[in-house]
Amino acid sequence: MSLNRIDLNSDVGESFGYYKMGLDEEIIPLISSANIACGFHAGDPAVMRRTVSLASENNVALGAHPGFPDLVGFGRRRLDASLGEIKDYVTYQVGALQAFAASVGLTLQHVKPHGALYNMAVANPEIWGVVAETMAAIDSRLILYALSGLEREAVLAIGAKHGIRVAFEFFGDRAYNADGSLVSRNLPGAVIHDHHQVAERVLKMVKEGRVACIDGTEIELSADTICVHGDNPSALALVKNIREAIQDAGVEIAAPATFL
Amino acid sequence: MSLNRIDLNSDVGESFGYYKMGLDEEIIPLISSANIACGFHAGDPAVMRRTVSLASENNVALGAHPGFPDLVGFGRRRLDASLGEIKDYVTYQVGALQAFAASVGLTLQHVKPHGALYNMAVANPEIWGVVAETMAAIDSRLILYALSGLEREAVLAIGAKHGIRVAFEFFGDRAYNADGSLVSRNLPGAVIHDHHQVAERVLKMVKEGRVACIDGTEIELSADTICVHGDNPSALALVKNIREAIQDAGVEIAAPATFL
Amino acid sequence: MSLNRIDLNSDVGESFGYYKMGLDEEIIPLISSANIACGFHAGDPAVMRRTVSLASENNVALGAHPGFPDLVGFGRRRLDASLGEIKDYVTYQVGALQAFAASVGLTLQHVKPHGALYNMAVANPEIWGVVAETMAAIDSRLILYALSGLEREAVLAIGAKHGIRVAFEFFGDRAYNADGSLVSRNLPGAVIHDHHQVAERVLKMVKEGRVACIDGTEIELSADTICVHGDNPSALALVKNIREAIQDAGVEIAAPATFL
Amino acid sequence: MSLNRIDLNSDVGESFGYYKMGLDEEIIPLISSANIACGFHAGDPAVMRRTVSLASENNVALGAHPGFPDLVGFGRRRLDASLGEIKDYVTYQVGALQAFAASVGLTLQHVKPHGALYNMAVANPEIWGVVAETMAAIDSRLILYALSGLEREAVLAIGAKHGIRVAFEFFGDRAYNADGSLVSRNLPGAVIHDHHQVAERVLKMVKEGRVACIDGTEIELSADTICVHGDNPSALALVKNIREAIQDAGVEIAAPATFL
Repeated sequence: MSLNRIDLNSDVGESFGYYKMGLDEEIIPLISSANIACGFHAGDPAVMRRTVSLASENNVALGAHPGFPDLVGFGRRRLDASLGEIKDYVTYQVGALQAFAASVGLTLQHVKPHGALYNMAVANPEIWGVVAETMAAIDSRLILYALSGLEREAVLAIGAKHGIRVAFEFFGDRAYNADGSLVSRNLPGAVIHDHHQVAERVLKMVKEGRVACIDGTEIELSADTICVHGDNPSALALVKNIREAIQDAGVEIAAPATFL
Repeated sequence: MSLNRIDLNSDVGESFGYYKMGLDEEIIPLISSANIACGFHAGDPAVMRRTVSLASENNVALGAHPGFPDLVGFGRRRLDASLGEIKDYVTYQVGALQAFAASVGLTLQHVKPHGALYNMAVANPEIWGVVAETMAAIDSRLILYALSGLEREAVLAIGAKHGIRVAFEFFGDRAYNADGSLVSRNLPGAVIHDHHQVAERVLKMVKEGRVACIDGTEIELSADTICVHGDNPSALALVKNIREAIQDAGVEIAAPATFL
Repeated sequence: MSLNRIDLNSDVGESFGYYKMGLDEEIIPLISSANIACGFHAGDPAVMRRTVSLASENNVALGAHPGFPDLVGFGRRRLDASLGEIKDYVTYQVGALQAFAASVGLTLQHVKPHGALYNMAVANPEIWGVVAETMAAIDSRLILYALSGLEREAVLAIGAKHGIRVAFEFFGDRAYNADGSLVSRNLPGAVIHDHHQVAERVLKMVKEGRVACIDGTEIELSADTICVHGDNPSALALVKNIREAIQDAGVEIAAPATFL
Repeated sequence: MSLNRIDLNSDVGESFGYYKMGLDEEIIPLISSANIACGFHAGDPAVMRRTVSLASENNVALGAHPGFPDLVGFGRRRLDASLGEIKDYVTYQVGALQAFAASVGLTLQHVKPHGALYNMAVANPEIWGVVAETMAAIDSRLILYALSGLEREAVLAIGAKHGIRVAFEFFGDRAYNADGSLVSRNLPGAVIHDHHQVAERVLKMVKEGRVACIDGTEIELSADTICVHGDNPSALALVKNIREAIQDAGVEIAAPATFL
């Protein structure tokens, strides 16, 4: 069962003050949804305004990418925050980005937790729950981006409970275990560096709803959005390959607010 | 010309993490509008949620109290930020607080710049302009709190230009110069410590629209809101005195969204 | 075997900017060693200078109290920092405090990790190892403060390996398990609130080198230093009781640099 | 009067967490003194350790480069900090870097205030005074880096008063006014972009102790150290040109601790 439409999302707005990170000007025209850092793990108010503006000019849907308050660790270190603290952190960051969106007459499409917060949610669906609950309290039209695979049914139920749509995410450059979870980055083979192979995996997921696992088996795994990167020129070239492969397969690249 | 209604506003939500500041539980029931710190000079996401909740329970109107990113200096130190940076800082902080308000089904009433940002705006009305412009871009129903006195006409014109209502503020415990400006805190007599005298000054402004200046003259000065403090039990007693004096004079205490 | 000398240590210098925490002026004259916050989880440069000065005036030995960079969480939340990051954080904070000590002609006596960092070290002695190694690289005269009890021999060996003396610490107000570990704060009875009982437990440890455990058994547990608190007037009264009880027993209160 | 020896200094260690800034690996082998950021305006504990190590391996003298606590503004925005606050900030940052130096068996050679703090000191020599006083209290062997030109005699007197040596600094790529001050960056011609011209200006200062001013006059201006940059490959090429020009003129490149 081939998909008709798929979203391409990427983490952007990660520069901070005089520190530049990522190739936002190049990646944003290639994606349909932007995950914009909100000042806790990356980004700052000036960067947020610029990034919202850049996404808006390219008709890319806006999303908040909230993380832990850990700029020096880029939000990649697990922090023993309570569910209440996570709720407060997500509320604060989503609100801050909403105001920049409102300033150009737009609203946010989605929320995708960043780094350690995302990984902790994957390991503990209670965190997806508190994020969904937080989103529902602010604006129930917001879509939650969550990992496709292992806990898909649980996350769908969480979304339904709070009246929040979920866009499931596929990582073309990450190896999967047979249970649908990602292979830990600490293990060999966790990240797939071959561009050709990544594009093929994306295409297989899009056209067949399947992914080849690290143990040689193949599992069903469908998704609404594919995570891509704009860190360097090579990553950009890969995104262009993925776009072409998807479009050549007759699948439309579109933000999930248009089809979920 | 006696006023019919006047607002009492106070800076609240200034605690941070394990650090407690102010007597919010005591002062909030005594005021009509709350200026809530937004995490840059004071406050944090958890404190913001609690403070919004406390104000909401007491039917106190919610306002953002944005300041410079200077927690250790409590936003009281002038920072050579550009107008663009001020715009970004105000957008970010107002948005963050809006999300907590939205989480309890409310919207913000007003924005009052904090500390050095407020003082810099008083000295340079261009800053009132950029704050008003920022507010208009986010939500044109927001009311700007600004110092009554010296530049009143200029600030009114700024508000009109951006379609933003202005609530002018009176400080009962601060001495005024004959031009309507506040006497600098570095000069003797700048702060009035006698509670009886403070209450009398408030009453005079409310009933006659006049204030006695430090040079012995008296000037016309009307206001929509009076700034009061909840730092300690003595300050709270003063607020109670002011409330009684105002109500005894037949003047209603009300948030400016109800009468501006 | 009664001790001749024992140290009383307390966490001080935890104020931050306009935020006051603790009763440093009252507690410092009652202790022999001060654990001074270094700006990551609490404290700031101005507070550090004042606290060093206050300790110096009271002939109290100076110690660094390094924590995680988590001001809003007061360093009490576990952070998934690497051993290398911990080494860097401890180096930075110890160095910063050393400069304030040098400014009044003094050197630091000790280093006591704070909050989550301390608790993580108790659970994982590798962290004691990296802290001791860090101290040895900066100044091998520094004494490490570590929890007495469960891993005492392991920590002694770590100190010996790096040429760092260890002062073992006893908590009079915390319940102990029979293996010498502290009862988790999440369990009932973990904190002993009765002042009389706390003073008795301290005295028993000082005179007999024993502590009654939560399961009714009694174990051997000796220590070089006792952790006391100056958070409020009641805590101060307890410290005075403990001091008197110790002195009445003929035991001298002294900083460990004088007897280790 | 040609100099025998001159120092080349550069701001390094300005990366932060995952954010990379500058080409430290390339610039450090080309200079004799390193101004290392200390975590307030740039740098972090891990970067400080790496930078100290890199400088040490290249026999480059270590210096602290303290700035205002303004990471997002890179310490380039004037902050209305008191002299006492500046003293505390400098103490803290110098101490933090000292510990990393001590960890590799080294001491710091110098202190050079960064950005807005440097510029504020140039405009208000009281700030040089408080920095010198702070340095003397920590380690009187530390050398102060200060702008050569306008206030040279005043700064020399400040150094003498506190027993602190001063290394005067020349900027080859900045235009000078006839009074020895730098032309404001807001004015046209303030920064000299032509590499050939910059190298010539450096050589003229080194060999003749003179600099051509923006108004066409020429003034006497000698210096102990030249500030160079490692921001990009072009800047590195310029530093190589400057090194060659200096060495061809028979002048030795050396850290000021060896000749002041």
